[in-house]
Formats: sequence, C-alpha cells, structure tokens
Amino acid sequence: MVIGLDIGASKIAGIIFDGKKAVKDLTIVTPKNLSGFKYSLLKLVKFLSLNAKINAIGVGLAGMADNQGRVIYSPNMKFLVGFNLLKLLKSLGTKKAVIENDANCFALAEARIGQGRKLKNFIGITLGTGIGGGLISNGKLYRGIRGSAGEVGHMMANKHQDYEKSFQKLRNSKNYPEIGKLLGRMFADVYNLLDIEAVILGGSVAKSSNKFLSYAVREARKKILNKQINPKILVSKLKHAGALGAALLVK
Amino acid sequence: MVIGLDIGASKIAGIIFDGKKAVKDLTIVTPKNLSGFKYSLLKLVKFLSLNAKINAIGVGLAGMADNQGRVIYSPNMKFLVGFNLLKLLKSLGTKKAVIENDANCFALAEARIGQGRKLKNFIGITLGTGIGGGLISNGKLYRGIRGSAGEVGHMMANKHQDYEKSFQKLRNSKNYPEIGKLLGRMFADVYNLLDIEAVILGGSVAKSSNKFLSYAVREARKKILNKQINPKILVSKLKHAGALGAALLVK
Repeated sequence: MVIGLDIGASKIAGIIFDGKKAVKDLTIVTPKNLSGFKYSLLKLVKFLSLNAKINAIGVGLAGMADNQGRVIYSPNMKFLVGFNLLKLLKSLGTKKAVIENDANCFALAEARIGQGRKLKNFIGITLGTGIGGGLISNGKLYRGIRGSAGEVGHMMANKHQDYEKSFQKLRNSKNYPEIGKLLGRMFADVYNLLDIEAVILGGSVAKSSNKFLSYAVREARKKILNKQINPKILVSKLKHAGALGAALLVK
Repeated sequence: MVIGLDIGASKIAGIIFDGKKAVKDLTIVTPKNLSGFKYSLLKLVKFLSLNAKINAIGVGLAGMADNQGRVIYSPNMKFLVGFNLLKLLKSLGTKKAVIENDANCFALAEARIGQGRKLKNFIGITLGTGIGGGLISNGKLYRGIRGSAGEVGHMMANKHQDYEKSFQKLRNSKNYPEIGKLLGRMFADVYNLLDIEAVILGGSVAKSSNKFLSYAVREARKKILNKQINPKILVSKLKHAGALGAALLVK
C-alpha cells in the first residue's frame, strides 16, 4: 500500500493506492499558512494510514521542490517556498517519499490508467487555481533538465501576463467564449512547438469544459500553423488523477 | 558526396558536403514566384553537381512538405504551397532526396557539428525573414507526431499576433531593446514548457545578436518560473548551418 497526495492551492486530496485503484480517499481544504498546512497534512496522512501498512508516500505539489525536498516555487502557495516538505513526510516514519509537480503526476496517471493509455506524446493540463502542465514524450514523463518542464501556464499570453494570470482573471467571470479562446491560444502554442497527439484536461475547471471547449478548439485550429492538425482535447475521467499519479511514482 | 540545400524566403544556400565539411557552396536570392524558383533551383543544383558524383540531396525548407514531397505550408514563400518539391528534386536524377523543415536542419547541424555537440536538450532558433525552430531532445531531432514540431515563431506573442509577425514588424526598426524583449519572452516560453539546456540562434539576424541579446536574457530571466534556470543563449558559429544539416540528413 502507498499513499498518494495531490497538494493544490485550493484542495489537498489523499488516497491509499493498492497498485490498481484508490481504496480510501479524503480531500481537505488547503490551509492558508505553513503551520496550518503542516498540522492538516499530518492529520490527513494519519487518517489514511489507519489500519494500513504504508510503504511509501508520493506527493504531487502545485509547484516544485529541489533534490533535498525544499519547495523552490509554488506560485499559488507562496507560504511553502523554502519549506522542506520531504523532511516533514519522512518524519512520519515512511521509508520512501517522492515529491513531483502535481501536473506531472496528473499526466502520468492519464498515461498509465487514463485517457492517455494509447497515446505516446501529449500534454496533461490541470485547470484549477492555477494552470499546470505535464508532458508525456514517447510514453514517458518528460521532466526537462532541472525537472521544471511542462509549465504551460507560465508561457506568455501577452506582453505583460502569462496564461495563468489571464485565466485567473477570467476564471469566475463565466465568460466562457473568452475563457475558451484564451485556452485555445495556449493549446495552439503547445501544438505549434511540440506537434503532440492530444491535450488532456483535468482539475476543477475541466468539469465545466463543455461550456468552453468548442471555443477553445475553434481558436486553437485558427492559430495552429500546420493545418493537417485537428487539435484533440480530451477531458480526464479519473477521480483523484493527481493523487493517483503521485501514488504511481512510488509504486 | 551529397548536396545540402537551405531554402529560405530571402536566400537559397547550397553546398556540396563530403561527410565532414562543405567543399563547395553557392548562395542565391530566392525568386518570388514558382517558375523563377524552379529555374533557379535547377541551375543551382547543376552548378553544385559539376564534376561531382552526387548520391543524394537533402533540403531544408522554410515550411513543411507532406510525405509525398508536396509543400503544405511555407508562411513566407506562399507560392510554394501545393508544389511537389520532391518530384522536382528527383527529376534531376538523384537517387535519394529528403525534405525537412529548415530550422530542424539548423538544429541538427548544431547538434552534430556545432554549438550543441555537448548538449542533449536544446532548441535551435533561426531568425531570418521569419522565425523557425528545431528541437533536439535526448540528442535527437524531435519532429512531433506529424513532423511540424518546433514552430516557436507561431506561438502567440499576444492575443492577436504570433512571435514571427511581431518580430517582422520590429526587425528593421533597430529598436534592439524591444527586439530583445520580444525574443526574451519567446525564449522564456520555451524554457517554461521544456526546461531545456540552451537556445542556439542562427539565421541572418543572429549576426547582430550582440545588440539585442542582453535585453533578451534579462527579459527571459524575468519570465522563467524556475529561478534556478539561468537561460543560456548561444549563437551559431557554423557557416551554412541549415544546408549542412540538410546534407547530414542524407549522409
């Protein structure tokens, strides 16, 4: 048995994974400061560990940690920067703990047990508080030289603002044509640079994708140079995809 | 002996390649219509073939051809779209002819015999009439699913315009701070998505890179999320890099 955690800016999801599926799960609201975060994470792990022998913890983090487990960036949970998350996890008595970017975990879960099972090259994009991305290249997670690849939300939407910031301004507007067009331009950027097979969407906002996806596809088609490309945008069907991917890291 | 051709919107460069270096070369101005193009290309190949036994022709094209050799896009040489370039090359009696995107050829040359020899993951970017890009991933050319990966110039610079169009507007302005900032944002986009080791610049505008590179690096550093990344922008030292890469394709 392993634990998979998906630490986002709004929610933290935790699962117990038996190698095939989640056999137990719990989701909590993400605390807004470090002491609250530490307290809640310990409680969550203790709850999940009850009556289970845990061999490892895999963590998907909305941000990035260095090799020592110290958080080096987390745009929407700035209180975590500098904090050694790995040390906290190890203090729970786990033999093995691994921290990976949350969107990378999402992409990994989709590649292994989700919409990407038959795909070799795609991007998993999480639409939540922020925008995350994880790249699957030739069937494997592509992490880049320093492990920070996939940050599609931090590509520039215009001269002054990245896609994430533009998305955050529109997110609650219900202006679905504009949300769709913004995301469509972002998808087109990825298609133009990587000529992938598909985009797989996850995160809380993906649940209302039927409202903006047609706008996104139309805009993407306009902006993709190679007109042989018909952009394929899939939506995740996995429950707790990020936590599943985090568990798969250590399984 | 093989021929390498680099077909750009302003110039066509041709070389004879002996496996190590160019032993003969000629550059001509690109004609502005199809009949002129066909005539000039035949003349160029004939000149290069004089007194040499040619086994193959490799072509780097500012655009893309389909599997049959028909040009499917070429944003700055629209007269080529629909034309079967492979057929023309084969009509010259060559056994083997291969067409590849020009920036992919540039990246390949840099990877094998240029600034990228010791790098595993980088992008080669050509700054000429337009902006081209070629990706080297794990030491090999990454072409994408349909062969159109690397089109960095067609990523969006703002809501309405891609980097290439923005660059074309600034290109002759000598406003080097603005040119640098524009390119810096584009480099940052690639770093954020791919966490590469370096950008290698080529093309005619790269020759004045000393005038804009400091602005570009400063802007890229600002826009890259992972502050552990110190963007490395190298400039090609190869003469006829694109044509060399094209020759390497068939060698």
